[in-house]
Amino acid sequence: MLSNSRTRRIEWSDCDPAGIVFYPRYFSMFDTSTTMLFEKALGMSGAEIYTHYDVIGYPIVDVRARFLVPVGYRDEISIESTVAEFRRSSFDMQHRLLKDGALAVEAIETRVWAKKHPDDPVRLKAQPIPQEIIDKLSA
Amino acid sequence: MLSNSRTRRIEWSDCDPAGIVFYPRYFSMFDTSTTMLFEKALGMSGAEIYTHYDVIGYPIVDVRARFLVPVGYRDEISIESTVAEFRRSSFDMQHRLLKDGALAVEAIETRVWAKKHPDDPVRLKAQPIPQEIIDKLSA
Amino acid sequence: MLSNSRTRRIEWSDCDPAGIVFYPRYFSMFDTSTTMLFEKALGMSGAEIYTHYDVIGYPIVDVRARFLVPVGYRDEISIESTVAEFRRSSFDMQHRLLKDGALAVEAIETRVWAKKHPDDPVRLKAQPIPQEIIDKLSA
Amino acid sequence: MLSNSRTRRIEWSDCDPAGIVFYPRYFSMFDTSTTMLFEKALGMSGAEIYTHYDVIGYPIVDVRARFLVPVGYRDEISIESTVAEFRRSSFDMQHRLLKDGALAVEAIETRVWAKKHPDDPVRLKAQPIPQEIIDKLSA
Repeated sequence: MLSNSRTRRIEWSDCDPAGIVFYPRYFSMFDTSTTMLFEKALGMSGAEIYTHYDVIGYPIVDVRARFLVPVGYRDEISIESTVAEFRRSSFDMQHRLLKDGALAVEAIETRVWAKKHPDDPVRLKAQPIPQEIIDKLSA
Repeated sequence: MLSNSRTRRIEWSDCDPAGIVFYPRYFSMFDTSTTMLFEKALGMSGAEIYTHYDVIGYPIVDVRARFLVPVGYRDEISIESTVAEFRRSSFDMQHRLLKDGALAVEAIETRVWAKKHPDDPVRLKAQPIPQEIIDKLSA
Repeated sequence: MLSNSRTRRIEWSDCDPAGIVFYPRYFSMFDTSTTMLFEKALGMSGAEIYTHYDVIGYPIVDVRARFLVPVGYRDEISIESTVAEFRRSSFDMQHRLLKDGALAVEAIETRVWAKKHPDDPVRLKAQPIPQEIIDKLSA
Repeated sequence: MLSNSRTRRIEWSDCDPAGIVFYPRYFSMFDTSTTMLFEKALGMSGAEIYTHYDVIGYPIVDVRARFLVPVGYRDEISIESTVAEFRRSSFDMQHRLLKDGALAVEAIETRVWAKKHPDDPVRLKAQPIPQEIIDKLSA
């Protein structure tokens, strides 16, 4: 499977009064990493992907995360992201956040390939994942 | 078990370009609800709880969430939060977010009752949960 | 002028490692207060206002803020918001954030009444503010 | 004056339902840029600066910003940051955010060099800015 790896520094804005990352912000980092992986695979920007495939994106339906090591202000981390499994219209993203080479946070997100529902702009309608997307993300 | 229920409106700042809640922000809402439940049970503010029990708080070690219904700008939601299970030094918080009476998001967070580690301010050291906390949250 | 007053508690998620509100988050609070004032004046939700008047909203073009007193975790604050001045297609919002009755943060935002530009969805095109909006916000 | 320049991409998490940057998040970007400038000048991490000089940081007391061009999802921007003026215990940071070479957002932040007040951990006490800091940021 294709993977995306990036490094990032923990900023003041990421941290809470305990001086560590406020945990919802990890998911924001993972969301960006998911987009980066798709952009890398498809050679298009996130916005272009949505237009080209006529989807609203890949909204999340399920997430599981484990927090093993606290990460603090100014820590240098790396995030490795890959698709762990494809299904007909959903897939599992796996994110591993490392600090000093050790696994600090691990998450599995289940996302669906979806359009806006024709009858209600807030609802979503799952679509089969195009084979070329599976092929390129599996490269 | 004691529970905390609150209503909240979805604000512009909660939403993403698809017009729905950016999912990491649900966890921020659940974090606030966890604190509200502890404050209700113990009759102290979050800051007082930390000082009184000499803990850094109840950092998260594991979370699982399911997203069943998209929630959009200006939706009125309610969040119901309770402890699902106590263990020696950790506990499971359950959050149910409802929209128009239907379950939209459900999360189980495992949190530990923790001090700062004496040797390293970023590390945490789990502590036994005081019996009076278990009693008051189980009321 | 009509004004909107609301109280709010400072949450863990609002605060930085110094234990005080991370200052960008004040502007998020003010944005919500601006919407609340419009909703109160017009008797419509924020989303309905945009649809009814066919605007993208009231994006900001200028802001000035002063931070007089730090605000910390668990502080109870109040925010008072009003239009300080109307012009043809822009207006000044004034927000006063009080802690224990003392002015802690004051901001003046200049916002425009705007549509999406017909030639470019990211650009905006200022519109004259409807007289009924001026009348209702001046009540 | 020394300046810091960095590029950044606008992420999904930065944007609001209008598809443009939610304006409070610009200030979060500027806060990071301020720290980056100090780190570049002093050759220490943000956390080390606070410890070395025994300060709580450089909290903001006044900000003024102009928003000239909307910035949308996936835009590549650059941020240039420098000290515009030093005073005894405060200084003005200037941030210029460019999109396609054009000025999109400009901000001037007045910040104080401060300790925690000895009598109240939430209050701050301004300190004279050390001459070596002025020298290194003026290089």
